[in-house]
Amino acid sequence: MNKIGLKSSPNSSKHDNMANAIRALSMDAVQAANSGHPGMPMGMADVATVLFSKFLKFDPAKPDWPDRDRFVLSAGHGSMLLYSLLHLTGYKDMTLEEIKNFRQLDSKTAGHPEFGHADGVETTTGPLGQGLAMAVGMALAEKMQAARFKEIVDHYTYVIAGDGCLMEGISHEAISFAGHLKLNKLIVLWDDNSISIDGSTDLAVSDDQAKRFEAHGWDVLSVDGHDAAQIEKAIAAAQKTDKPSMIACRTTIGFGAPNKQGTSGVHGAPLGDEEIALARKELGWPHEPFDIPNDILDKWRCVGTMGARHSAAWEETLKALPADVQSDFKNSLSGNLPTDLEDTLLEYKRQLSEDAPAWATRKSSQEALKVINEKVSITVGGSADLTGSNLTLTPQLQPVTADDFSGRYIYYGVREFGMAAIMNGMALHKGFIPYGGTFMVFTDYARPAIRLSALMEQRVIYVMTHDSIGLGEDGPTHQPVEHLAALRAMPNVQVFRPADAVETAECWQVALQSKSSPSILSLSRQGLELARKTHTAENLCAKGGYELAAANLDVKVSLLATGSEVTIALKAQKMLESEGIGTRVVSMPSWELFEKQDDAYKKETLREDTVRIAVEAGCSMGWEKYTGTDGGFIGINSFGASAPAGDLYKHFGITAEAIVAAAKDRL
Amino acid sequence: MNKIGLKSSPNSSKHDNMANAIRALSMDAVQAANSGHPGMPMGMADVATVLFSKFLKFDPAKPDWPDRDRFVLSAGHGSMLLYSLLHLTGYKDMTLEEIKNFRQLDSKTAGHPEFGHADGVETTTGPLGQGLAMAVGMALAEKMQAARFKEIVDHYTYVIAGDGCLMEGISHEAISFAGHLKLNKLIVLWDDNSISIDGSTDLAVSDDQAKRFEAHGWDVLSVDGHDAAQIEKAIAAAQKTDKPSMIACRTTIGFGAPNKQGTSGVHGAPLGDEEIALARKELGWPHEPFDIPNDILDKWRCVGTMGARHSAAWEETLKALPADVQSDFKNSLSGNLPTDLEDTLLEYKRQLSEDAPAWATRKSSQEALKVINEKVSITVGGSADLTGSNLTLTPQLQPVTADDFSGRYIYYGVREFGMAAIMNGMALHKGFIPYGGTFMVFTDYARPAIRLSALMEQRVIYVMTHDSIGLGEDGPTHQPVEHLAALRAMPNVQVFRPADAVETAECWQVALQSKSSPSILSLSRQGLELARKTHTAENLCAKGGYELAAANLDVKVSLLATGSEVTIALKAQKMLESEGIGTRVVSMPSWELFEKQDDAYKKETLREDTVRIAVEAGCSMGWEKYTGTDGGFIGINSFGASAPAGDLYKHFGITAEAIVAAAKDRL
Repeated sequence: MNKIGLKSSPNSSKHDNMANAIRALSMDAVQAANSGHPGMPMGMADVATVLFSKFLKFDPAKPDWPDRDRFVLSAGHGSMLLYSLLHLTGYKDMTLEEIKNFRQLDSKTAGHPEFGHADGVETTTGPLGQGLAMAVGMALAEKMQAARFKEIVDHYTYVIAGDGCLMEGISHEAISFAGHLKLNKLIVLWDDNSISIDGSTDLAVSDDQAKRFEAHGWDVLSVDGHDAAQIEKAIAAAQKTDKPSMIACRTTIGFGAPNKQGTSGVHGAPLGDEEIALARKELGWPHEPFDIPNDILDKWRCVGTMGARHSAAWEETLKALPADVQSDFKNSLSGNLPTDLEDTLLEYKRQLSEDAPAWATRKSSQEALKVINEKVSITVGGSADLTGSNLTLTPQLQPVTADDFSGRYIYYGVREFGMAAIMNGMALHKGFIPYGGTFMVFTDYARPAIRLSALMEQRVIYVMTHDSIGLGEDGPTHQPVEHLAALRAMPNVQVFRPADAVETAECWQVALQSKSSPSILSLSRQGLELARKTHTAENLCAKGGYELAAANLDVKVSLLATGSEVTIALKAQKMLESEGIGTRVVSMPSWELFEKQDDAYKKETLREDTVRIAVEAGCSMGWEKYTGTDGGFIGINSFGASAPAGDLYKHFGITAEAIVAAAKDRL
Repeated sequence: MNKIGLKSSPNSSKHDNMANAIRALSMDAVQAANSGHPGMPMGMADVATVLFSKFLKFDPAKPDWPDRDRFVLSAGHGSMLLYSLLHLTGYKDMTLEEIKNFRQLDSKTAGHPEFGHADGVETTTGPLGQGLAMAVGMALAEKMQAARFKEIVDHYTYVIAGDGCLMEGISHEAISFAGHLKLNKLIVLWDDNSISIDGSTDLAVSDDQAKRFEAHGWDVLSVDGHDAAQIEKAIAAAQKTDKPSMIACRTTIGFGAPNKQGTSGVHGAPLGDEEIALARKELGWPHEPFDIPNDILDKWRCVGTMGARHSAAWEETLKALPADVQSDFKNSLSGNLPTDLEDTLLEYKRQLSEDAPAWATRKSSQEALKVINEKVSITVGGSADLTGSNLTLTPQLQPVTADDFSGRYIYYGVREFGMAAIMNGMALHKGFIPYGGTFMVFTDYARPAIRLSALMEQRVIYVMTHDSIGLGEDGPTHQPVEHLAALRAMPNVQVFRPADAVETAECWQVALQSKSSPSILSLSRQGLELARKTHTAENLCAKGGYELAAANLDVKVSLLATGSEVTIALKAQKMLESEGIGTRVVSMPSWELFEKQDDAYKKETLREDTVRIAVEAGCSMGWEKYTGTDGGFIGINSFGASAPAGDLYKHFGITAEAIVAAAKDRL
């Protein structure tokens, strides 16, 4: 055991008024909202006070200062802890009014911390465990940026995590990954209060957390979470290790509420006026609700203003660097793409139309990435142990290892959820454009983090291959059916299902250009003929849907298809036209982008006056919007099966013949 | 360290022909299919041979014998290991022909083991980590059943898990839960081969697995996985401990393939004819592909037939029990409901219509459960640390603890995915009807296991409360928007969104009666007026959708609503009718059940001749099917926000006024 135990010091019950200010604001705000979680902020007030006043490098006047330490409240339900700290340290937008409007519409003080609502909120938390995993992504991004800009990147990532975070499976993926890469500037403060919503944690868990973290290569320390001196010593020690650190902070949830502290009753409900009055006595805090005496506020504001010194010194260091380094650094943070990327991709597209390769779109993605990764220096690839299947690796990328963070490729291991959350953390940190691969069906494993990518409007690109029964023999557990629908249903997710190499390049371009949306690239395992043989300067996929092949005869039928089924639709078109039935094919690589087009364009693309048949090797949900309720659908509304891909397409009736029959039925 | 180390014995390279039979079948079948994973079966053949020949209690002639040991191949890609064992030990349906048809359409030998395809396949595996978690559910069910029927329930649950399983987050939830409940009859054999798809596991993971398992309360042993004597000693030791056991089996992936063994090249691709020929030499296996010499087959078949003795002895023990105990036991396995449950629920419904309680549907669910849990003795409730919010606990249920498994309530901890997978394991084991709660938004966390409930056709009931922005202040991370659509998109999932106490009782009844589908109950946090004031003997929810309130005037408008929005639709109906616009309200608690009705019923319920407006506090995806593309939708297609529920409904325009306006726009 490499455990550094700190003995309980005599003043272990000490809690000063700076911490009490957090407690008071938290219990008062929750009471005013008549909703919220007072227990955690009251319990962790001492730890947070030490962290913010003695260690955290931040400047409330410059919330986006790139070299600030990151603070992640993984136990997001304790949001009042964070809001109190932001207010007390002097973040301009976190006024007392906002605190009083806790959990009200349009306030900056949402029930859980929401990225983008208030300065100083580094990430959205609440879905447990994900804050910890995103913090791992931030700590990783710091290491990687420091490997590139060592003079100006040197900051810690601190996390407050609760019992719930550590019970969630994603905590395992995050902890294991961080230990593997020895992310030593990651420091996790575990709120070890033995209480979760259902009551004592004894009801459901008996983990030896210290041993657990050690098993994954972490340093572990243990402190009385109400003893400032112990906390200070521990954080100072944690900063110096060559491993990530976990500090177990033994705390009393709801510290200060005499009748409710230490119970689940204080976890997620207001204390009530009576208990609040008693807590004020217990804490020696006679002040009115929301009233922070000037001397205490001054102390806190002093902590905040001290940050200006650090950020100013840093600015000097930055300015002393060569101009090109400064510019590289700023460009990496901006996340802007090189101006000539567009031309390069255009030329690449032109060449593709000429060469007409019949690649699987996963292969097309890799070929597009070869072009992109050459031009864009801030892309960071990776895969959840499916590198050779997802084809996410290109020759430009070297692996990131514990010894060398200068690379741009991450072996995430079999950790789909962790990968997604880590990518969120990297995107939030800034400096990189993360993309990562797994099988499309395993978007289910990563789904809670994909949702946060979308909610936080982060440019994270998911390279999801083997996107239908077309993957063949691996069978129904590996064959996505409902996944396109389930992802399209999610707000602010761009789902792309390109049909060939040209469309794949176009979709990659849109995904990279979309700075405030995550993108899902749904890619085939199987080879697909090139559908876009005529080069166009315009990025047609950017419209979401477009007429790929016009009818030669008087139009009777429109086939709306995506991805690997476009080829089948084109075949059906030929068969129908050979029977004298004018047929056009519309490729619809992205519903979301199509929805953004004007009505006239949508109308002329969908052609309501024709018989419309949708063709997609997924479930039908949502297609009625484009085909009408009298339209047809060729796809699969059941689970798949294990067999060679060709057999499956026949078995499930996703064939040109079936399309022809469905069209003729409706004429 | 409580680690029991077994010294490497001199014959550690020993591998006998029984194990080689597995290797040969595996490499030959993968080669014939030109697809599959030979490495794992070849590496774990020795371990599996010891397990099946010396320990596993099973009877190939009675694959459903209730007291058989359960064997779960969590590393499901190694399916040929299992199929080989089933064929060799004499499961009737696992013919050599099936082995030869590995991964072909309609064979019993799917790419990954599929529950229901072949006898002896205890569960579907392939999505990594879930087999382990389901095995935890089986081991839990064994303990619980043994607490009820100690004379006739006494079996082990064995798992083979790979590196990938142990990297997945769900492994944490499963291991932690099993350790907490001291499921000592669970024995995990870890295929410690240091290889995953991307290459050496060193690329992505540095965990000390022994220490990790110990941190979660497991006994850990370590063996040379090619040394039969060591393996035998370890399993014998693991059987005797009072904790769950993990046996780390150091193996060489692809054991026997001279050039490829120990590399990722042998993981997921056929060996190729040349390497197979060399492996035959290396293993001393000169026989033709798929040819198992009689002496070796006889040894294996002998293992299988030995099982008959065990099952026969067990039958004797069963028969010696009192008739009522026998009958209770058989009833619990059948999963049948008491015949008088229907009448009891009918009477309960009648009372509800009379009393007209304005409960939240989560509360209505609890009240229904009080009735159900009194009548049905095999329901097992639980929650992922949200008992008081999900209202899943009723007075009849006592907690299950490590000391007492006679209870019927499980504190799953903050482990949504684990809960779902454990419930799958319990359902597969038989003897119980598991239901478990969390917030609807966290179906995302549990989604991969919900998919397996559906694929395996298991009756698992998900009590998903706080099912819309109506949960209020917790904000967008906790507010489901796309979840109804995402779950409806999944094959064989029954999604129920009841509108009031009566509908909730009806939906519970259907969920319980649906033996081959999981059900999702989507329930409100907020109180809802009773909509069904007129008692009907018929279970109207069983039709999925029905006319709840007819128009008083000539019908012009149909409002299609679900759950908490039915009340709003009823209000809008009044407003519209007061303006002379005949309006009816259709409640649609379950799309899946509605789809099963005949066309005439669907037509008369949907009334295409009216203006149709769908009302649901979720996203619009899929509603066009019922409203037509010219219909209206009142709901929410963005993420939610943090504010009191009433404010949010107004903010997002889910109001009777908005419905009225949408209807009038279309008249």
